[in-house]
Amino acid sequence: MTLSARNRLQGTIASIETDGLTAEVTIELGDGQHVTSVITANSVDRLELEEGMEASAVIKATEVMIDA
Amino acid sequence: MTLSARNRLQGTIASIETDGLTAEVTIELGDGQHVTSVITANSVDRLELEEGMEASAVIKATEVMIDA
Amino acid sequence: MTLSARNRLQGTIASIETDGLTAEVTIELGDGQHVTSVITANSVDRLELEEGMEASAVIKATEVMIDA
Amino acid sequence: MTLSARNRLQGTIASIETDGLTAEVTIELGDGQHVTSVITANSVDRLELEEGMEASAVIKATEVMIDA
Amino acid sequence: MTLSARNRLQGTIASIETDGLTAEVTIELGDGQHVTSVITANSVDRLELEEGMEASAVIKATEVMIDA
Amino acid sequence: MTLSARNRLQGTIASIETDGLTAEVTIELGDGQHVTSVITANSVDRLELEEGMEASAVIKATEVMIDA
Repeated sequence: MTLSARNRLQGTIASIETDGLTAEVTIELGDGQHVTSVITANSVDRLELEEGMEASAVIKATEVMIDA
Repeated sequence: MTLSARNRLQGTIASIETDGLTAEVTIELGDGQHVTSVITANSVDRLELEEGMEASAVIKATEVMIDA
Repeated sequence: MTLSARNRLQGTIASIETDGLTAEVTIELGDGQHVTSVITANSVDRLELEEGMEASAVIKATEVMIDA
Repeated sequence: MTLSARNRLQGTIASIETDGLTAEVTIELGDGQHVTSVITANSVDRLELEEGMEASAVIKATEVMIDA
Repeated sequence: MTLSARNRLQGTIASIETDGLTAEVTIELGDGQHVTSVITANSVDRLELEEGMEASAVIKATEVMIDA
Repeated sequence: MTLSARNRLQGTIASIETDGLTAEVTIELGDGQHVTSVITANSVDRLELEEGMEASAVIKATEVMIDA
């Protein structure tokens, strides 16, 4: 991994929903929790994303809030 | 949960590091993966965050990228 | 409030517009200024947002720029 | 205003705190609510920000969450 | 420039695609590289953006990752 | 490139400044424009970033605003 983003959560693509320019991609992690991402439909096509593929959710640390 | 943010990953605070105005807080999830957050030191104080506490990482879906 | 996000601006939902996966929600603050949010249509449904409801705009401090 | 960011909240700079590369700038809005921003100390210098100045908090709509 | 955002990349609008509430605007920089932006369709209308116009991509420094 | 982020601007690291947990890294692009990034000091160490290295600025399209 050569990217500065601190977070890379590995899992499996559970669902992909596309509408116009926008797509929602949900990844299921190993403990059953889910991460939902909003990306462009263009990226879904470019990366040839499909349900069931192994994939990671990548998140810059400054984008993560804490609730406690 | 009454917040629009789609992602709330539950875990335990594994570490807190504070320097000046900034803090790094790392949460360990149930499957052993970690999420690192950069928040203000002010928020660490206000929420009385401590290592070992149960806490969630909250992330807006538009901030999540996919790597596959 | 148990969330690290530093900003929580209280007001009333002035408008909601939904198209496909995306929604625009505008909150009117007490001084007549407006805050517009782009969230997923899923969150509008899940939180049962409606015009006229009291609601807050929540914003992480690292996302706020200054113009002066 | 020629910038695509949808939100521009006008107020007065209530406080500026700088430490190393980072600064926290708080703006007081007309209804007494506050908006806190984390920007670089470099920008505080470049814009010659001072307490008491009129300033706006500028926020892209995709960065705003709703709590209701 | 009176905005705290550290990055302002000048170029020419190469394409605009709008669908519902969302728009993708691509700017071509002087060295032939492209920057793609997702903004609201409302902002495309308000700024009267058109292909061929000179425009800048504005990005807060905390949103930029490094790959090396 | 297997990451959904739409923007990857190639250049050379012109400067790195670190203070506590935070670092500012500036990349010079081919047309002489600069992109400044705020990342964690941890990432500067992990990626072994140094002035003069070839590197890319990676930016999610939803984080890019347009000024025109």
